[in-house]
Amino acid sequence: MERWLSGIEEPADLRRVPRERLPEVARELREHLVEVGSEIGGHFAGSLGTVELCVALHFVFDTPRDRVVWDVGHQAYGHKALTGRREGLRAIKKAQGPSGFLRRAESPYDVFGAGHAGTSVSAALGMSEALRRAGRSERVVAVIGDGAATAGMAFEGLNHAGFLGTDLKVVFNDNGMSIAPNVGGLSRAASPRGYFETLGLRMLGPVDGHDLGALLVGLEALREACGPTVLHVRTRKGRGYAPAEADPFGWHATSPFAVETGERQSGGPAGAPSWTACFAEALVRVADRDPRVVAITAAMPDGTGLDVFARRHPGRVYDAGIAEQHAVTFAAGLAAEGLRPVCAIYSTFLQRAFDQIVHDVALQGFPVIFALDRAGLVGPDGPTHHGVLDLAYLRAVPGLVIAAPRDENELQHLLATAVDCGRPFALRFPRGAARGVALDPDPKPIEIGRAELLREGCDVTLVGLGKTVATAESAAERLAEAGVEATVIDARFVKPLDATTIAAAARRTAGVVTIEDHAAQGGFGSAVLECLARHAPGTPALVLGIPDEFMEHGEVAEQWRLAGIDAASVAERTRSWMGGSK
Amino acid sequence: MERWLSGIEEPADLRRVPRERLPEVARELREHLVEVGSEIGGHFAGSLGTVELCVALHFVFDTPRDRVVWDVGHQAYGHKALTGRREGLRAIKKAQGPSGFLRRAESPYDVFGAGHAGTSVSAALGMSEALRRAGRSERVVAVIGDGAATAGMAFEGLNHAGFLGTDLKVVFNDNGMSIAPNVGGLSRAASPRGYFETLGLRMLGPVDGHDLGALLVGLEALREACGPTVLHVRTRKGRGYAPAEADPFGWHATSPFAVETGERQSGGPAGAPSWTACFAEALVRVADRDPRVVAITAAMPDGTGLDVFARRHPGRVYDAGIAEQHAVTFAAGLAAEGLRPVCAIYSTFLQRAFDQIVHDVALQGFPVIFALDRAGLVGPDGPTHHGVLDLAYLRAVPGLVIAAPRDENELQHLLATAVDCGRPFALRFPRGAARGVALDPDPKPIEIGRAELLREGCDVTLVGLGKTVATAESAAERLAEAGVEATVIDARFVKPLDATTIAAAARRTAGVVTIEDHAAQGGFGSAVLECLARHAPGTPALVLGIPDEFMEHGEVAEQWRLAGIDAASVAERTRSWMGGSK
Repeated sequence: MERWLSGIEEPADLRRVPRERLPEVARELREHLVEVGSEIGGHFAGSLGTVELCVALHFVFDTPRDRVVWDVGHQAYGHKALTGRREGLRAIKKAQGPSGFLRRAESPYDVFGAGHAGTSVSAALGMSEALRRAGRSERVVAVIGDGAATAGMAFEGLNHAGFLGTDLKVVFNDNGMSIAPNVGGLSRAASPRGYFETLGLRMLGPVDGHDLGALLVGLEALREACGPTVLHVRTRKGRGYAPAEADPFGWHATSPFAVETGERQSGGPAGAPSWTACFAEALVRVADRDPRVVAITAAMPDGTGLDVFARRHPGRVYDAGIAEQHAVTFAAGLAAEGLRPVCAIYSTFLQRAFDQIVHDVALQGFPVIFALDRAGLVGPDGPTHHGVLDLAYLRAVPGLVIAAPRDENELQHLLATAVDCGRPFALRFPRGAARGVALDPDPKPIEIGRAELLREGCDVTLVGLGKTVATAESAAERLAEAGVEATVIDARFVKPLDATTIAAAARRTAGVVTIEDHAAQGGFGSAVLECLARHAPGTPALVLGIPDEFMEHGEVAEQWRLAGIDAASVAERTRSWMGGSK
Repeated sequence: MERWLSGIEEPADLRRVPRERLPEVARELREHLVEVGSEIGGHFAGSLGTVELCVALHFVFDTPRDRVVWDVGHQAYGHKALTGRREGLRAIKKAQGPSGFLRRAESPYDVFGAGHAGTSVSAALGMSEALRRAGRSERVVAVIGDGAATAGMAFEGLNHAGFLGTDLKVVFNDNGMSIAPNVGGLSRAASPRGYFETLGLRMLGPVDGHDLGALLVGLEALREACGPTVLHVRTRKGRGYAPAEADPFGWHATSPFAVETGERQSGGPAGAPSWTACFAEALVRVADRDPRVVAITAAMPDGTGLDVFARRHPGRVYDAGIAEQHAVTFAAGLAAEGLRPVCAIYSTFLQRAFDQIVHDVALQGFPVIFALDRAGLVGPDGPTHHGVLDLAYLRAVPGLVIAAPRDENELQHLLATAVDCGRPFALRFPRGAARGVALDPDPKPIEIGRAELLREGCDVTLVGLGKTVATAESAAERLAEAGVEATVIDARFVKPLDATTIAAAARRTAGVVTIEDHAAQGGFGSAVLECLARHAPGTPALVLGIPDEFMEHGEVAEQWRLAGIDAASVAERTRSWMGGSK
C-alpha cells in the first residue's frame, strides 16, 4: 500500500518526505516497478538495483537544477517514476508512452539523452565545464554502471575529467553486471579505486547502494566534493525481487510475469524463429565444419545468439565488453593469424566501430565477418537503437562485401559465403521473426554479387533487399491486382551490386523502385541509382526507405507504415509514381 | 661513421651483434635518422625517442616470428631501418617509397598495419589469442605510447587483456607526449601502475628507454613473463638531437633542416595560406563576436589550427586527447548548456566518433559544429589518413547540415552560418593551400541549402563541391575550348542539397556531372542522383569521385589524376561520356 509514492509527482515532493521515511519510499517504488514490470514486461529488472539510488539522488541533489546524467537508461525507470512518469511507465516503449531510455524531449529531468552505453561521463563533463565557464553553481552528476564503464569513451571522459579538474560528480553503480555478467580486468579487480585515482579522480566509498542511510551520506559527500569525484556504490541487479536477484542476467529484460511465482509468459505465439536464432543456428552449422570460425560479442551474448553458439562450441566465443572498437580490431588480430572471426554486433552499436572497420579490417583485407543484427527499424527501443545507417556508412568502404538475406535459408548460405570467401563481409538482418522457411541441409557459398530474379513483369521493377524482398513480393501481388506487372529482384548483395540483373530489368520495364529498411539517403537505393546512372542511364527510379528523420519508438509494423515501406504503401507509392512519371 | 648499421639488413643480423656493442648500433641508427630527416623532413623526430627501443626489441625478440605490433607508426622509423628499409627511408611517404606508417604489404616485420592511434593492444591481443588457440609459441608485443593510450579503444583492449589472461606483452612507451604534450589524468599520474594493475595486467619497470642495458633486461623480463604484462619504458621524444629534445612538439614533423644548426627550411613557396590557417582565422573572427564559441581538438592543436585560436582566445580550447568519441559527446554536453562548440577533427579521425555524432549530437539536435580538416585525398599520409568517407557516413544522419567551401571566403561565411544556425553542422575542407582569395570584412551567415550558379552553358552541367568547384570551373574552360558549353554549380551544401538549382540546370542541359574529392559511392554524387531521381527523372548523370579502392600514398595532385578528378580528366571524361550517352 502506497503511503508516499502516490504523492510524489516530482522530486520536490520527495524532498519533503522525512529523511527517515525514505526507505518506505524506496519500498513502494520497488513494488511499483515490480507491479508494472509484471504487467507489461520490459527492462524493469535492471532498475530494481537502483531504486534506493534514484530516491537518494533526487533527495540529495536539487534536480532538475542539479543535473543527473544517466547512462544507457535501462536502470533509470525509478528515476522516471519519481519525475512525473510513474503511471506513464505502464506504456513504456509503446508508441505514445515514455521512451525506454533517457530523452530530453520527454522530461526536464532527462537532462541528456541516452541509449548507447558509456556516454554519461563525457556529456556530464561538457555540461559541468559549460556551467563553470558561466560561473553557475548547478551540480552535474553522471551515473554510470560498471558495464557501461567498459566502453572506451567512458575511459576517455574520465581521463579528461581527471585532467581538467572540473567539479564533475560520478556515481559508479557497480553491480558486477552488464546485461550479462560484466567482463574486463577492471570488473575482476578487488576495487576500482586504483583505476579512478590514477586517472585523477577522487574516490569516495564504497557504499552499499541498498542502505539508504549510507547512500545519502555518500551522495552528500559527493555533492560537497571539490574536483572530479567518484562515489563507488555497490548494488545488486534485480534487488528486492527474488527471482530477478537469483538470475539477474535472465531478468535483464522480461515478458510479463506472475509476481508471486516469477513465472513468465512465453515469448508470444509460436511462429517463425527469430532472425537471431536463425543466425545462431547458421553460425553453429558453419562452425561445425570450419574450426577457423570464432565469434565475438560486445557484451550481448544473448541478444546476438552467441549464447547458443557458446553452448555448442565452448571456448569459441569472446565477450569483449561494451567495447565495439576493440572487438573489431581484436577480430582483425584474430584474422591476421588465420582465423575467421564473426563479430556479432547490432547495427546501431557497430556505428561505434566504423573507423576500426575501415582502418583495421578493410584496409588490410582481413576476413572478418560482421553480423549486423537488429538492422533496420527496431520498434520499441526507438531512435537510439534503429539500425538504419549501416549501408550508408559501410557502402563506401573499399573491399567490403555487404549482403542481406531475404529468409533464414539465404542467411545460412550467405554466412557460409562470408566464411568461405576470405574477404571482409557484412551481413545485415533485422529484429523479429524470420520467414519460417525450410533450411537446405547444408549452408553453401553462393556467388558474390549475384542477385536473384524472383518474378518477371514488364511494367515496373521492384528491387528488395533482406526483409524488403517480402515487401516487394507482396507489393507486386497488389500491383498485379491493379493490372501492373512487376519484376521482383532480391538484390542479396548491396556491394558488389548485381548491375547486370538490375540494369537488364531496368531496360525491360518502365522504371525501378527500390525498397529498403534503411535511410533513404546513401543506402541501397542510392547504390541502385549509381548502378543505373552507369548501366541504364535515363531510367526513372524511385527510392523508398526511411525518411530523413529519427523515427520514434513503437511497433515495427507501425514504423514501417509510417516510413511508407510496408507492402500496401509500396504498391500505392509505386502506382502513384508510375502515374506521375509517365 | 657506420660500423654496424650498414651490415644490418634484417634483425637476424642485429642479433649477431655483440650485446655490448648495441649502444653503437643505436648511435648509428640515430645518426642515420637525423641525416635522412635533415634531407627530406617528415616525422623523424618522433622516432628519435625509440631508437634504443627498436634496437632492443629486435634484439630480444625473434622477429618476425615473434610479432611486434607498433601503434600509429610515427615512432617506428627505426624499426623500418632495421628491417630492410634503411635506405628506403629516404623516399618515405613518396609515391614509390615506404609508407609513413606500418603496413603489412610492405614488410613481413610490419605484422599489423597502423596509422590511427590506439589500435595496437587490440590487434596484438587478437593475434596472441589466435596463436594460443593454435598452441603456438610465438610472442606478441604491442608497443603503445602514452599519447595513443588516451584512445578509449586502448583501454578497451587492455581491459580485455587483463580479463583473458593471455600472454600479451605491452611496451608502454611513456614520453609525456602525444603530437603535442599529452593530456589526461593518466598522463599526470606519478605512475601509470595503478591503471594497468587495476585492469589486471602485471607491471614491469619503469626502465630508462635510452639505457640499452636496462632496456634489454626489461624486455627479457617481458619476454619471459606469463599473462598480460606491461613494461613501462620512459623515453624522451626527439632524444639525441638537441633542437628536437628542446622542442619535441615543434619537431614532431619537420621540413628538411641543417643538422648542425637545426635551422629548418621554410615551408615551401609563399602562396595561398593553408585551409587550416584560413579555418583558424575564420574561427577567431567568428569567436571574437560570439562568446558561446569554444573549440575542441583531439590531440591535434597545431594540425587543426586551434593553436592559433588558443593564442587569440585563451581558455576557449579543449584538448581532449586522442579521444574523438569523448570529444564529440563532451561537445554535446557543452552545447546542452548553451555553448556553440566547434570540434576540429580531421575527417579520417572523425570516423572514430560516428556513433556519438548520431546518438549524442544529431538525435538531440545540438548545435555542435564539426570542422573536418584534411577531407578528401591527403597525399603522403596515404590510405589510413584519406578523408574520403565523411559524406557517406554523415549524409544519412537526420538533421545534420553538411557543407564545403570552395574558397576561404566561403569558408568564413559557412562557419558563421554554422555558429548562427543552431543546428548540428559539418564543414569539410581539404589539406593544402586554399585559393588565396580576398576575404570579405565580416563572416556572414548564408542561406542553408542554397547553391551558387557560377557559369551558364547549355550542353552539360558540372556540379562541384568545395575544392572540386575549381576543378569544375577549369574543366568548363577546357570544354568550352572544345565547343562544349557547361553550366557550373557550386553546391556548397551536400545536405540539404539545393534541388531547385540543380534540377533546373539538369533540365536546361543534356546531363549532369558531379565531381567530388570523396568516394564515388554514397557521397555527393549519390546525393545528386537522389535529387535528380526525384526532381528531374531521366536525367543522365555521371558521378566522378574516388574509385572504390584504397588510394596509395603520394602527392595529392597525382592522386587526383589517378582518381580522374583533376580538371583535365574531368573535361575528358565528360566529353567521352557525352559522346557515349548521346
